[in-house]
Amino acid sequence: MPKISNRGIEMPASPIRKLAPLSDSAKARGLTVYHLNIGQPDIKTPQVALDAIHNFNHDILEYSPSSGYRSYREKLVAYYSRFNINVSADEIIVTTGGSEAVLFAFMACLNPGDEIIVSEPSYANYMAFAISAGAVIRSVPSTIDKGFALPPVEEFEKLINERTRGMLICNPNNPTGYLYSRSEMNKIRNLVKKYDLYLFSDEVYREFIYTGSPYISALHLVGIEENVVLIDSVSKRYSECGIRIGTVITKNKEVRNTIMKFCQARLSPPLLGQIIAEASLDVDAEYMLETYDEYLDRRNFLIDSLNRIPGVYSPIPMGAFYTIASLPVDNADDFCAWCLSDFEYEGQTIFMAPASGFYITPGLGKNEVRIAYVLKKEDLGKALIVLEKALEAYSSR
Amino acid sequence: MPKISNRGIEMPASPIRKLAPLSDSAKARGLTVYHLNIGQPDIKTPQVALDAIHNFNHDILEYSPSSGYRSYREKLVAYYSRFNINVSADEIIVTTGGSEAVLFAFMACLNPGDEIIVSEPSYANYMAFAISAGAVIRSVPSTIDKGFALPPVEEFEKLINERTRGMLICNPNNPTGYLYSRSEMNKIRNLVKKYDLYLFSDEVYREFIYTGSPYISALHLVGIEENVVLIDSVSKRYSECGIRIGTVITKNKEVRNTIMKFCQARLSPPLLGQIIAEASLDVDAEYMLETYDEYLDRRNFLIDSLNRIPGVYSPIPMGAFYTIASLPVDNADDFCAWCLSDFEYEGQTIFMAPASGFYITPGLGKNEVRIAYVLKKEDLGKALIVLEKALEAYSSR
Repeated sequence: MPKISNRGIEMPASPIRKLAPLSDSAKARGLTVYHLNIGQPDIKTPQVALDAIHNFNHDILEYSPSSGYRSYREKLVAYYSRFNINVSADEIIVTTGGSEAVLFAFMACLNPGDEIIVSEPSYANYMAFAISAGAVIRSVPSTIDKGFALPPVEEFEKLINERTRGMLICNPNNPTGYLYSRSEMNKIRNLVKKYDLYLFSDEVYREFIYTGSPYISALHLVGIEENVVLIDSVSKRYSECGIRIGTVITKNKEVRNTIMKFCQARLSPPLLGQIIAEASLDVDAEYMLETYDEYLDRRNFLIDSLNRIPGVYSPIPMGAFYTIASLPVDNADDFCAWCLSDFEYEGQTIFMAPASGFYITPGLGKNEVRIAYVLKKEDLGKALIVLEKALEAYSSR
Repeated sequence: MPKISNRGIEMPASPIRKLAPLSDSAKARGLTVYHLNIGQPDIKTPQVALDAIHNFNHDILEYSPSSGYRSYREKLVAYYSRFNINVSADEIIVTTGGSEAVLFAFMACLNPGDEIIVSEPSYANYMAFAISAGAVIRSVPSTIDKGFALPPVEEFEKLINERTRGMLICNPNNPTGYLYSRSEMNKIRNLVKKYDLYLFSDEVYREFIYTGSPYISALHLVGIEENVVLIDSVSKRYSECGIRIGTVITKNKEVRNTIMKFCQARLSPPLLGQIIAEASLDVDAEYMLETYDEYLDRRNFLIDSLNRIPGVYSPIPMGAFYTIASLPVDNADDFCAWCLSDFEYEGQTIFMAPASGFYITPGLGKNEVRIAYVLKKEDLGKALIVLEKALEAYSSR
């Protein structure tokens, strides 16, 4: 029987998917499982988007352009300009989700063996896309006791060698909720400029910043315009994870032309997804404000409640809809699995993502979990009671 | 400015996209351009599929499972069994188009530097996916004078070395329309078995076989069940190119588990596409028969007409909706470009794909073009008159 690829062997199983069978069997036992593990919002998709589906009237579900519909890209120009991101329609390429945007950015910019530097914990799938491209991720740990602030720039600089080709940031951050300050973004800028690196910047959570702090996009940074490759997606901002529409944006023409070759090979991004995403740009301000307020309210409730549980600590996330919390357990992987396989409280249990899967350095984050606040407050409240009971039961096993 | 990847440099620009700007400027000059260049059917999508869009009633456009909706995969089991392909729902993984199916199959099975063998001319994007995976495509030419039959197996065997990991076939074939006979498929089987290779088999055109010959799927071949990775897509059979729904099917559990890691990294295939594809399985027999008859009629008309043009020759394609024709020109790349940039006949011109882009060996197919018969007969007829006039004008420049 032919062997699979080494790439396939190296590819990490998703930290969440590993526990999915346990969750399924908990449900099969009749338990209510609160999903704190995934970034699937429970917020209703905007009505303008759902209307676009019902108004769809093509007779043939034809290919769209490999770079995405021009009408959508032109409308995105106005969207980005509201965030002071000044790009033209030609600088925007529509992708099949933010996932494809990351993959194609890596494929176009990185040779096998090239290195990129990221602070950890970090979105787990970056690693998978790096492996797909044969690239190597080097990491600098950020720590929960410093609230996951940008580690000192010297720590990044130490890792730079002749194979280093880029830095990767996610801002606001999944999984930590951290938001880089202007001063931190300037430090990143200086490093990128000094070593002429790519700056891959995933900014899909820009709508969800809960402090007065300004959102500093990588495309705001002066002097590295040709180095920045911005990753975006409509999944989270409009509760449209399923339509698989993202964008990759760069002012670097050579990178864009190269990404387009990969786009042409896969023919086109999803037709209906683009029509929905385009319609979503007309969403009323009310919807975005209500969504924002809802997440803000949940964040405040979640963090406050977490920090009241003995031995639990969570910094206050400034953006996105995740937090990393430390628990009074030695091994959060075991604890998360145990909650699903062995524990219940009044017919309920919780599914959390062990944070270890978001760290690149083995051994880090062993007592941490990532919690997504994509459940309504009432359910979050119930889930937190279950968490407290589970910790008590776990420690007295 | 950071450099792009070597992968990006190697990646061939699509043979069709290279000419697209010329086509655009021909249209801008007011010409009618007949598109013989792409496999975008003009056949209406089945009504059951369009109805599924209007009946869609989710409130949240949520992620679907990484392997695709189970209900769809279960319904596909019945579809495949009609072709005597016996697979379970667990052996089917839903992908974002056939494109992603090929990419993930290569990523999971091939290491950088590994080789696969394909007969040429061949679907141009296979090369792009091989480059993405760092794999090397070795090719055995099939020739127009033998109607693009499978080259002698000894020619394939000559290329086999310690890096050879697989064979890749497309059956019925894009771009030649050739259909492998039972005897040819058995030869492929024997080779795959002898050297324990993967057999990647792209069978998206199985509905479109215009001879009495049986369709032999790679999954019909006995004794290599664990070696076969079948690629499929709904794009062509239901005129649903834009929804980006394909499948990758294998009985090899290790390959499946590995492909699933890549699927999990990209989270999910398109939600609406899957709902449309699932509904399409209920299409009435009438639709499929009418579509079949339409393509058959066009094929007969196209090939007959082509072979009446002095100096033009096309074998009779047995399946799919393409043919490779040889033209009385030295350089079909130049001729195809010239048709768009310098020629018109009564306000019309034609856009054909130079066949050179489908060959891997440089220099082959220089006087050949690929013609897709996805236009209605009336337009095909006009296009063929334009072709005849263009050839006359080109030879007397």
